[in-house]
Order: sequence, then structure tokens, then C-alpha cells
Amino acid sequence: MSKHDRVLLAHGSGGVMSAELIAGFVRAFSSAQSAASGGVGGLSAVPSTSLPAPSPTPLNDQAILPASGKRLAFTTDSYVISPIFFPGGDIGKLAVCGTVNDLAMGGARPLYMSVSFIIEEGFLMSELDLIVASMASEAAGAGVAIVTGDTKVVEKGKGDGIFINTTGIGVVEDGIDLGPENIKEGDKVLVSGTIGDHGTAALLARGDFKIEADINSDCAPLHELSADIIAAGGASVRTMRDATRGGVATILNELIEESTLGMTVREASIPVRDSVQGACELLGFEPVYLANEGKLVAIVGPEVAEDVLVAMQANPLGKDAALIGEIIAKPAGMVLLETTIGGRRILGKLSGQLLPRIC
Amino acid sequence: MSKHDRVLLAHGSGGVMSAELIAGFVRAFSSAQSAASGGVGGLSAVPSTSLPAPSPTPLNDQAILPASGKRLAFTTDSYVISPIFFPGGDIGKLAVCGTVNDLAMGGARPLYMSVSFIIEEGFLMSELDLIVASMASEAAGAGVAIVTGDTKVVEKGKGDGIFINTTGIGVVEDGIDLGPENIKEGDKVLVSGTIGDHGTAALLARGDFKIEADINSDCAPLHELSADIIAAGGASVRTMRDATRGGVATILNELIEESTLGMTVREASIPVRDSVQGACELLGFEPVYLANEGKLVAIVGPEVAEDVLVAMQANPLGKDAALIGEIIAKPAGMVLLETTIGGRRILGKLSGQLLPRIC
Repeated sequence: MSKHDRVLLAHGSGGVMSAELIAGFVRAFSSAQSAASGGVGGLSAVPSTSLPAPSPTPLNDQAILPASGKRLAFTTDSYVISPIFFPGGDIGKLAVCGTVNDLAMGGARPLYMSVSFIIEEGFLMSELDLIVASMASEAAGAGVAIVTGDTKVVEKGKGDGIFINTTGIGVVEDGIDLGPENIKEGDKVLVSGTIGDHGTAALLARGDFKIEADINSDCAPLHELSADIIAAGGASVRTMRDATRGGVATILNELIEESTLGMTVREASIPVRDSVQGACELLGFEPVYLANEGKLVAIVGPEVAEDVLVAMQANPLGKDAALIGEIIAKPAGMVLLETTIGGRRILGKLSGQLLPRIC
Repeated sequence: MSKHDRVLLAHGSGGVMSAELIAGFVRAFSSAQSAASGGVGGLSAVPSTSLPAPSPTPLNDQAILPASGKRLAFTTDSYVISPIFFPGGDIGKLAVCGTVNDLAMGGARPLYMSVSFIIEEGFLMSELDLIVASMASEAAGAGVAIVTGDTKVVEKGKGDGIFINTTGIGVVEDGIDLGPENIKEGDKVLVSGTIGDHGTAALLARGDFKIEADINSDCAPLHELSADIIAAGGASVRTMRDATRGGVATILNELIEESTLGMTVREASIPVRDSVQGACELLGFEPVYLANEGKLVAIVGPEVAEDVLVAMQANPLGKDAALIGEIIAKPAGMVLLETTIGGRRILGKLSGQLLPRIC
């Protein structure tokens, strides 16, 4: 599974080591999938099913599942954020928004959600009430029905307050087909607003640093913003991703790393709040590696870039949207950053662990 | 949410206190569901959806979701069993089988699964490899494709090795409509084999008791057994449940508690291995409250009971199947046990905590 003997915190960072670990899962589960279908891949050998095979690459953020004419999106995330209450949200809001966003990034309209709690013995019921109310409110706002669930309790000292898994199902309308494989030379790279807010808010909420700053998490459901983008850009919307663990830098790399094309991004165009920039400078972090929970990156054809940008800015969750870069011919599979001081450097993925338990 | 200020281990027992806690979740998420749809229940106000409303009672073990003519079953469970390796299985096998079984109990054919890991820093990669291999093997055997996933890592001391969430989607063929609301007077109660194997095996594997016994968990996927039951019993199969946390006694109560009918069960007819019976007597447990991970309870019309029993016994996972009781007119909502010594008593649900972290 890995060259490491033990799981390290960096295996949960969303960066390079996470990718290595998950690659091992993909190998294991892909071969199982082949075995389940007689070695030809997909689900075709499941007896008398009318469902065609799903995407052959498992363990993406969402799976698109064809079901009798309608394609379904299916996504799961476990939330382990610490602290569980932070400026701008709590683990419950995060758990609903995060899964809504993974569905929305696949172009799906979120419909159904499961909720599974792992609670540490002694956890305050009053806090559980707040978290559940927060989930109910966010789900209602997003038009998502929480339809099934599970609750486990572990002994004191064997968990950390509460962990929440949400798994979502959404429907993908015909004609919507998003994915990094659609990216073309000349495409534009858009980001929906200021970056690093969630990571900074969660970090400061831990109180490990003596920094006072008025920074709220951007935790929000992005399904309407993504629908606005698709409405404005149509089939020229190539792909979308929410920039969670690993930050914008890691997500941009993930979008381009399998490509024969490259990407250039202008540092000066990336929106960052002054307060976030200030906190990052004090702490030695770069905002592009900090987690966001209400920001997305979209890659769209140049012919629709301006229309999509206007549509994003018309949505309150995209009011600070900006065009930050382009798809270029080479170097393939890399993100080049044009720095504010006029230089150029490779913008890599997050490597190792920046902030554990950020989502 | 509860009359308790803090979460207790018994809130995860699968018994009375679990039910109280989950009732609070259902209230919160049901009202959210109504709000999402303009107060009329279900999903009908989600714009331009072609999907009708799901079942109005959320947080059952599986939700049946109508999707363009085909109904989908949707179920989630987080697995926190300790120890993670036990005679007859491991947490990975359990996580796949448990979710396959929840789908199968809804009459669904399992198709897709998500997997989400919460891993404690320092967990051995070699153990993770074993667990993932076990999941891949079980999924292949059950014809289920693992199509999406997530991995989080928490600091040492903030988890307990590994927790796994699996969430499954299956398809329910037309004409299959299972549920306790279908139960009629005179129906027969069947159990698919010896009970208490999993609970006893997991308990002894913890090594807290100085009892040596050769008892394996019954952990197994029940989708073929449930299909055999439906094939033999057709529309006269009323409902099925796998008898996990809380054991057969709790599951039988859950099936009848909302009913205007009652149930009688013969203790002498309930299959229990001598080794399990022996361990239970030493430890002061009743097998009917111990968890099973490869046993189901089916309630079927009397006209098909013999055929269903024969079909169950023809499947290796049902070879010890037995007819253990009947649905009676009254007392309503209760399970009466005819004891081996000729008495009669109420068989209640599990109350409080028997064995934490049994699944």
C-alpha cells in the first residue's frame, strides 16, 4: 500500500502522500471490480442488471453511476475536523456542505444523503444537538434529503468528540460531462473567490497560535454556483473542483497532472483576504495550500470565460471570483506560477502534512 | 436529542438508548426534509426532478430511492469493531458484508459501494493492506463495485486504529416491497442459522475473559440467501432483517413494535451452538442479545414458510435455518418467548450496553 510501515498524519493531508495511499486502494478495489465482473472491468457481469459499467477509475471524489437513463453521482467523505466548532461553521455544516460540493463538482444536483456518526463516549448531547440542527438546516437549504443513517459510540479516549461521514447521491442531467480529460489548450482557469479562509479560520480556532484575526471559514454549499457556471458556460465548462484539503495549488495540479497540457497561474490574480495573507505570513504558510470549503476552481473554454466569470460574480458565493490562469501547451502536467515579483516557478502539490484535521 | 447530557456507550448499543438517540436525528432530519420540499414532505419541490419522494421515514437501515423507474436502496454504516481482526473475519470483511446485508434485507441487489477510512496515526500499513485486501475480496465475491472513497488520518490517541464507513447502493426489482408494515397474523418467523456467533467470537477475541473456545464470527454476505428467500416466497415474504447489534431479540422487537399484532417465539427452536451457549452461560449473556453478522430473520406468509425454509437450508449460509415463531393477534407490539422450561415471558429489546464496538 505504501513505502511507509505506519500511517502518518501526512497520509491524510490531501497532498502527495495521500495520493500514494489512495493509489493503493484504487489498485486493490479496481482488481476486485474486475473480478466481480469476470475480469472485463465494470459491472457488466452482475446478473441481469440493466445498469452499464461505472467509470473505470474508482475512488474519485464522486462516481458517476448510470441508472436506467439517468446518471447518478455518488460521493463519500468522513469529517474529522478539530475543533468541531469554528468561526463560520461546525463539523455538521461542513459534513453536509462538503458532500453537496463533491456532488456539485461532478455537475450533479444533490438529492439524497446518508449520515453516519462515530461519537466518543461522554460527548455533550448539547453539542450533538447543535451539530444535528446545523446538518438539518444545511440539508434543507441545499434541497437534500437525509434518508438513512448510522450511529456508533466508542469508548472515551478511542475517538475525538465526533466524526461524521456523509455520503451523497445526486442526479447528472444529460449533456453534462465534466472531467479533467476535457481540458484544451487556451482554456481559462477561474477561482470562485478568496482562498485559504477555511484553513486559516480552523487553524486559529485551535488556539495554538497567539494570533487574533477576524477570519471566518468559507464553508458553504456550492451547488447553485456550479449550476450557474454550467448555465453560463454550457458544454464549454470542462471541469470543476472544490479546493479543499491541499488547497488550490494541489487541486490545480490534480486537474492537469494526467494531461499532455500544462497550466500557468498568475499569483497576483488569486484573491486572498488581507487578514488571511497576514496570518499566513506570520505562520509561514502559503494560502494556495490552505483548505477551502466554499470555493471552487473551474476550467472553461475561452469563448465562455467572461460569461462564466460574470455569472459567478452575480452569485453571492462567487462575488470575488477571478480569472487566474490559462491552459498552455507545455510543460505538460505541471502548474507554473507567475509570481507577484515577476518570476516563474513550478507550483507543486502539497507534500507532507500542513494542517491535520482541517475537514 | 436525549435526556442524557452526554453520549454514553449504551447510545451505540443498538438497543433502547440507541433508538432514543436516533429518534432525535429522525426528527431533526425529517423536518429538514419537509423544509427542503416546501413543507409537503419528500423531495417534490426540488426543481424539475423526475424522482418521486423517498420513504417518509428517514434513517432506516436502508432508504429506498425511486430513480426513473428503478428503485434504488441506499444504506450506510460505520464500523468500529474492536479488535479489528477476529476469528472469522476482520473490520474490512465486516464493513463490506454489513453493508451488502443491509441492502439485501431491503430486497435489493447490491451494486455500488463507497469506502471511507478514518485511520489513527501510526496504524500499521501491513494491517491496512490486509483490511483493504479483505474488502476487495468480499466486494468481488458479492458483485459489488467500490467506486468512490475517502481517507482521513487523525493524530495518535484521537482514534483507535481504524474506523471504516461503507455506504451502498443497490437496485430493487419491481414487485419487491419488503417492510414490517406487511406483517399479517399467522405469518411465520424464520431465522437463518445459529445465533450469537459473531458477538461471542468478538468478545472472546478481546481476551478480557479467560475463556478458550473455538468460535468463529458468522460474518458473511447474505445477498444470495435473501434472493433465495424471495425466489421461494415471492410476494409472501413480508420483511427481512439481519440480526446485528442488539441481536435477534432486539430485531424481532423492532419488526413488531409498531404493529397492531404481536409475536411469539419458541426458545427451544432458536439455533445456538453449544460452544456459544456455554460461553454465554459462563459470562451471563443471553445469545438472543448477541450480535450476528451473517444471520437474518425473515417473516413470511404461512403458505410459503415451508418452501422458504427449505430454500434457506439449501444455501450454505442458511443450513441451520429454523422456524422459530409466529405472528399472533395480541398482545400488540410485543415479542413473547416460550421458554425451554415451559414458561412464557416478554422478550424485550436490548437495554443499555452489552458489548461495545461489536461492529
